[in-house]
Amino acid sequence: MKVNGKHYRTIWMEGHQVKMIHQNKLPFCFEIFESENHLQTCHAIKTMIVRGAGAIGAAAGFAMAQACREAQEQHNYFEYIRKAKTTIESTRPTAQNLFYAVKEAFDAGMQSADKAVERAQELAENNADEMKKIGETGNSLIHQKMNIATHCNAGWLAFVDYGSALAPVFEARRSGKDVFVYADETRPRNQGARLTAWELHQENIPHAIIPDNANAWLMSQGKIDIMITGADRIAANGDVANKIGTLEKALAAKEYGVPFYVAAPLSTFDFDCVSGNDIVIENRSEEEVLWQEGPDKDGGFHRIRTANPESKALNPAFDVTPAKYITGLITAHGVISPTRTDIRQLKDFL
Amino acid sequence: MKVNGKHYRTIWMEGHQVKMIHQNKLPFCFEIFESENHLQTCHAIKTMIVRGAGAIGAAAGFAMAQACREAQEQHNYFEYIRKAKTTIESTRPTAQNLFYAVKEAFDAGMQSADKAVERAQELAENNADEMKKIGETGNSLIHQKMNIATHCNAGWLAFVDYGSALAPVFEARRSGKDVFVYADETRPRNQGARLTAWELHQENIPHAIIPDNANAWLMSQGKIDIMITGADRIAANGDVANKIGTLEKALAAKEYGVPFYVAAPLSTFDFDCVSGNDIVIENRSEEEVLWQEGPDKDGGFHRIRTANPESKALNPAFDVTPAKYITGLITAHGVISPTRTDIRQLKDFL
Repeated sequence: MKVNGKHYRTIWMEGHQVKMIHQNKLPFCFEIFESENHLQTCHAIKTMIVRGAGAIGAAAGFAMAQACREAQEQHNYFEYIRKAKTTIESTRPTAQNLFYAVKEAFDAGMQSADKAVERAQELAENNADEMKKIGETGNSLIHQKMNIATHCNAGWLAFVDYGSALAPVFEARRSGKDVFVYADETRPRNQGARLTAWELHQENIPHAIIPDNANAWLMSQGKIDIMITGADRIAANGDVANKIGTLEKALAAKEYGVPFYVAAPLSTFDFDCVSGNDIVIENRSEEEVLWQEGPDKDGGFHRIRTANPESKALNPAFDVTPAKYITGLITAHGVISPTRTDIRQLKDFL
Repeated sequence: MKVNGKHYRTIWMEGHQVKMIHQNKLPFCFEIFESENHLQTCHAIKTMIVRGAGAIGAAAGFAMAQACREAQEQHNYFEYIRKAKTTIESTRPTAQNLFYAVKEAFDAGMQSADKAVERAQELAENNADEMKKIGETGNSLIHQKMNIATHCNAGWLAFVDYGSALAPVFEARRSGKDVFVYADETRPRNQGARLTAWELHQENIPHAIIPDNANAWLMSQGKIDIMITGADRIAANGDVANKIGTLEKALAAKEYGVPFYVAAPLSTFDFDCVSGNDIVIENRSEEEVLWQEGPDKDGGFHRIRTANPESKALNPAFDVTPAKYITGLITAHGVISPTRTDIRQLKDFL
C-alpha cells in the first residue's frame, strides 16, 4: 500500500535492523521505528509500536533472526538463541502468529543465523502474498453498495501488507464496487478510530467511525449488511480469539441475521488448540482504559484522564467468539465453515 | 447523598435560580452551576451540564417555572410561556421525563407562575421519593457477593437523588450486602467511567470500570450475576430506549442467562408510545466521538483528538432494547414484567 504516494510495508528487515511503521504514533504522525536488536524489537511488540496478528508474527520472526545474528558474537550461540526465543514469546500471549514465526525462525536458526534471517524474510513475504489472496477471496462476499462493519484494525497495518478483514474491502473498492465502512472505535486503544479509519482514508473509502456500543443498534435498523473482523487465534473447532468486543458484535450479528465473517491467514490457526477454552486471554494495563493520548487542536500532544481519578479498571484485551456465531472464515484458500473438518483440511496448505 | 460530607441534591430551585451539580466538570471538579433564567437552564440541558432522565425532567420543570416567573414581566404572559415550552422541549428529544415535567409545570403555569414553581418543586420532590422506593424494590434482587454490571450513569446524578439503576446497589450496600460493580465506560461521553465510578467511589462501593466491549466476554465467563440499567423512555409494550449500547448488553445477557433489569420512575413510561419503533433517537455531534476532554497528570485540562483527523463519525445517543430481552422493570411499585398488561397497571399510580 502507499502512504503519501510512497509504497510501504508495515514491517521489514534491512541488514541487522528491523524497520516498522510506528503504529502508536499514527494517525497523527507517520514515522518509521528502527530496531537495532531483538530486545528492541521485543519492546516494540510489547508496547504495540507494531501490533496486529500478522505484523506481530513478522516482527517476532525478525526478532528471532536478529537474535541469531547477535548470537554469532556470543560464547554460546544456542544458549543465546534459546533465551531469546523465550523472551520473544513472552511479549504478547494471545496471537498465534507470534509463536509460529518464532518457532520457524528458531528452527532455521539452529542451522545458521543466515537461515534464520532467510526464513523470517520468507514468512513476511508469504504473509503479504497470503493476505492478497484473502482480499480476492473475501471480495466475492461483497456486493455493490454494501455497508460493511469491522472491529479493531485488521487492515494492512496489522499484517505485512493488504490486511485480513480490510483486504476484501480494499479489493472490492479496486474492483469498482461502492462500499461504505462502519469502523468500530475499538476501545480501549481505539485501533478502529485511529488505524482502520486512517487506512480507509488513505484508500479513499467512504467510512464513519462509530462507538463500539452502536453495532447492535445499527444492525437492528438494517444499516449493516456484513461484518468482517480479523482474528488473533483460531482454535481447531473454529472458536475465534480476537479483540475484546468481537463476541458482543457477533452475538448481535447472529440476532439480526447479519453475516459475520472472520478473515485470517493460516498462521492464525492453532490446529493443536482444541477449543476457545484453551486460549489464554491477555489482560493489559488498566492505564489503557483510564487514560487517552492524542493531539489538541494546535497539535500539542497530551495524555489525559478520561475516568474518575480514584477508580480502577479491568482491561481484558481479547475475547473468544464461539464458532456457532461465525458465518464463515475467509482464508487464502477460500471461504470455509468454522468446523473441525473444514479447518483440518487447511493443514494441507501448510 | 453526600459529597465531601455535605448533603446535596443533583438539582434544585432557589428563588429565581436553578442550581445544579455541573456534571460536565465531574469527576475532576465539583462545582454548582447557577442558571439565572429558563434559557440558561435550556443551555444546561442541551450541553449536558445536567443529564440523566430524571435530572433532565426536574431541570425541564424548573426551566418552565423560571419561564413563568419571567413571563410576569412580559406583555403577553401566555405567549411567552408557550414559546418557552417549545424551546425547552427542543433541548433533548429522547427522555420522556422532560416532556412530562414541562407539560405539568406549563399546565400549572396557566393558573399562575407561583403554581408552576410549586408544581416543578413537587415533581422534583416526588422524583427523590420515588427513586428511594426503587432502591428498596431493587435491593430484593441483589444477593450477598453479587457482581452487578451497569451501563451509563443511572445513579443519583441522573435524578434528583438516589438514582434508578444504582439506587438498588446503594440500598444493598446500606443493608450490609457486599457487592461489586462493573461500570461500563459508556462511550462516547464516558458517563460510566466518569460519573458512575465517581458515585460508587463516594459511596465506598468496590467497582471496576470496563470498556463497553467487555460485557459479553465477562458474562460468558460467569463474572456478571445481574445487569441493571436505567431508561430514557419506556414504551407501552415494554421496549426500552436507553443509552447506546444497552441493546448490545441486553443481547449478551440473554445469551448467557444473566438477568437484565431496567430501573425507572413512572415519568419514564410513555403510555402513549405503542412500541420502541415510535421512539425518536437523538443523533448527537460527531465531536463527542472524535475528541476527548480531561486533565493531564498535572491537572491541566486538554481536549484531544482520539481518532484519525480526516475521518467522520456517527453518534446515535440511544438505542431501543425490545421488551423480550428484559427480565423485569424495577419500579417504585414493585418489579414488573415488561408487558403491556403490567405496564398499563402502573397508570393507576400516576
